[in-house]
Amino acid sequence: MAKIQRSKLYVGCLLFSVALNLYFFINLHLIRGKWSNYQLSWSLQAAAEAEAVAAVSCSGHGRAYLDGLFVDGKPICECNSCFGGPDCSQFSDGCVADADSGDPVFLEPFWMQHAASSALVVAGWHRMSYVFDDQSFISHELEKHIRKLHSIAKNAVTSGKYIVFGAGSTQLLSAAVYALSPENSSSPAKVVASVPYYPMYELQTDFFNSVSFKFEGDASLWRNHTSDSTKNVIEFVTAPNNPDGKLNKPTLQGPSVKTIHDHAYFWPHFTAIPAPADEDLMTFTISKLTGHAGSRFGWALVKDEAVYQRMVRYMTFSEMGVSRDAQLRALKLLKVVLEEGDGKEIFEFAYQTMRKRWERLSQVISTSKRFSIQEILPQFCTFFQKVRGPSPAYAWLKCEREEEEDCGAVLKEANIIGREGSMFAAGNRHVRLSLLRTDDDFELLLRRINTLVSEQDRSKTM
Amino acid sequence: MAKIQRSKLYVGCLLFSVALNLYFFINLHLIRGKWSNYQLSWSLQAAAEAEAVAAVSCSGHGRAYLDGLFVDGKPICECNSCFGGPDCSQFSDGCVADADSGDPVFLEPFWMQHAASSALVVAGWHRMSYVFDDQSFISHELEKHIRKLHSIAKNAVTSGKYIVFGAGSTQLLSAAVYALSPENSSSPAKVVASVPYYPMYELQTDFFNSVSFKFEGDASLWRNHTSDSTKNVIEFVTAPNNPDGKLNKPTLQGPSVKTIHDHAYFWPHFTAIPAPADEDLMTFTISKLTGHAGSRFGWALVKDEAVYQRMVRYMTFSEMGVSRDAQLRALKLLKVVLEEGDGKEIFEFAYQTMRKRWERLSQVISTSKRFSIQEILPQFCTFFQKVRGPSPAYAWLKCEREEEEDCGAVLKEANIIGREGSMFAAGNRHVRLSLLRTDDDFELLLRRINTLVSEQDRSKTM
Repeated sequence: MAKIQRSKLYVGCLLFSVALNLYFFINLHLIRGKWSNYQLSWSLQAAAEAEAVAAVSCSGHGRAYLDGLFVDGKPICECNSCFGGPDCSQFSDGCVADADSGDPVFLEPFWMQHAASSALVVAGWHRMSYVFDDQSFISHELEKHIRKLHSIAKNAVTSGKYIVFGAGSTQLLSAAVYALSPENSSSPAKVVASVPYYPMYELQTDFFNSVSFKFEGDASLWRNHTSDSTKNVIEFVTAPNNPDGKLNKPTLQGPSVKTIHDHAYFWPHFTAIPAPADEDLMTFTISKLTGHAGSRFGWALVKDEAVYQRMVRYMTFSEMGVSRDAQLRALKLLKVVLEEGDGKEIFEFAYQTMRKRWERLSQVISTSKRFSIQEILPQFCTFFQKVRGPSPAYAWLKCEREEEEDCGAVLKEANIIGREGSMFAAGNRHVRLSLLRTDDDFELLLRRINTLVSEQDRSKTM
Repeated sequence: MAKIQRSKLYVGCLLFSVALNLYFFINLHLIRGKWSNYQLSWSLQAAAEAEAVAAVSCSGHGRAYLDGLFVDGKPICECNSCFGGPDCSQFSDGCVADADSGDPVFLEPFWMQHAASSALVVAGWHRMSYVFDDQSFISHELEKHIRKLHSIAKNAVTSGKYIVFGAGSTQLLSAAVYALSPENSSSPAKVVASVPYYPMYELQTDFFNSVSFKFEGDASLWRNHTSDSTKNVIEFVTAPNNPDGKLNKPTLQGPSVKTIHDHAYFWPHFTAIPAPADEDLMTFTISKLTGHAGSRFGWALVKDEAVYQRMVRYMTFSEMGVSRDAQLRALKLLKVVLEEGDGKEIFEFAYQTMRKRWERLSQVISTSKRFSIQEILPQFCTFFQKVRGPSPAYAWLKCEREEEEDCGAVLKEANIIGREGSMFAAGNRHVRLSLLRTDDDFELLLRRINTLVSEQDRSKTM
């Protein structure tokens, strides 16, 4: 009898033990999935922290950040404009529709959808040195990815060109002006751009106040002065143009004219790509490609070796090359761009988003005689291999009524903030409206414009 | 009998099952440790990749990087200078001892020892915007950590001071020169420094070639010209000085003199901290604090609001603020600095490393009449609360023989590369030797110096 009892006890223990084994097995191998076999050690804590931050719910109108505020150890939501409360669920009714800055946050949902492939783990000892293995300041893996990116996007020819990295195109524009200015000349180079132009060209050139260059405003004013080879001119050519989305061409030509082609927006998101750009000096930025304005990373494609060397010197003396952390982040992001559908996925997402926004805005504006926006014709795109409609980054809105000379004031009255035309040297009958921001920003903008347009119609029929 | 057999079978199965449970338990709870309960999802793959890279063995003479070269999916070792082969185990005998650049890689072992606390996981959508929640370009969490850091290190007074972020002190030095230069003056400010001075001051000021300032060399030459308030002077004061480690004071004083205090090396690693610095404009950098030169992050403490605003403008026009990725990395690193032993741990590690290097080099040089290095007296340090011996970042080596006027050439002959005195406007009888680099670099330098000194003695006794 005692033996039978003991035998039952053994069976009981065995069953319990087997059940426990099953629990452990499931926990260890099934729940933890594909990567469960990796015995994570030093990265585990940081990964858990980052996932805890990402898991905070902000109602789709905000997000928490690893370097944001924590209260009682809990990360706090940072809400989109006009949303508030602990979980960003409260909408402020009278809030201003902000269409001012070109913050490219419309791409945030893309990266949330690609969380696993875009996550990055940085070891504490990652790239501590001033230099990479070849004693340069730039990651050659990143350079390779940039060349591949252009060949997939079909927007620029990289062969036979050097690549300079900068902290966004902002820094590269300045580096390019320095590099193209005469080294020893009695008179400074004239820096010009076509109206309407991106304000940074003027602000930056004025601020750095160099002996070698001076901002001289509208390019067309200098059309008859370019044959004199002693008068150096540097022209900014922006394509697509900020603010109006036009694929600008150089205004000036001649032996003493040098050109900086600002292609920040030359991606299938914002424009048809008629052919790959192949100019001597072109700048690009990750801000308007992946939406990571905060990373401050851009690059220039440069044909002439001497100009390239001077731009590299600029980068050395201004900050000893772009942060390796920004370079690592850019590399990770470009890997996702290239790997997901061979580049198709992000361009498709970005184009669809911008296209829909433009169509909805155009629809509303088309019912109004008080306002107009720029016309952009459908064009064949070599990337999408079809004729495609416009999807610009900005609406260049015009107040058509003769008495409404200050268009910004008209919009402000309607609780909309745009960027005044005078900032682009174009007069205040125009306002730039940013279409790049969050869905929340765009929806509010559209609602306000709608109200403005329908009120005007109502007042007319009365 | 059958029952006894079965009973034995049960016991056997039970023992096996219990052993299996034990294996699972250890695996799940002990090996995976504290964070094992976190069910990682999107960060798992990136974490596994980073750990795989970190696990590559490079024999202690190199390391693999996430953004380095991969061959057949395997990350490749990047070896310290003079080491080669797939695992960096091969030493090149005739290789040059490189004591040139101030690459602060001596701190790399500290970060490898603190792998878990210094690891960083970045989500794909982290800080995409141009601005933080308060519309600024800077992380206030990071700013708070910087203030706490100075109070723990006891090296600077931060209360009543603004903080500007820059891409390393390199960029902040330039921003400071712009901010202190007169806005509307007929003559440019004279930018000066005491010989021997850090070459970047001159290179940078010359390169940016502004209408508002001009490099004018040695500060002492302008001692009699500072009473004229129309002649603006900007003096760089470097403490500890690069190259010679001296705690420099301003050379010039007067109503028209403005001073930039470069405190890149003012940490307990490199100098006794006699008292917290409390000047109007001070620059610091993470490069020489944590060793992360590659991250390009530094900050300035600025008393005057107008100067602060002009430095912020500089940062805006040069690159729209420092990369958020560099800011996030700096925050993580400063957290480790502050958390581990309340700041004591890194300062202790860094001081011990630099102190031992200096003692060993001094020992060798003291036996020589041909060479000398600068004398630094022991001094009371308010951080360590004791009198401590010297531990400078560089040896400022002098060739004492009258005929050896080109000290760099003497060292080159002995297969040592330093930085020539003329680069510091000090003449070529001096050479700067960097003591900040890897253990491999330092050991080779010491061996070569040893040989040089003992050969000279031998040749004399013959």
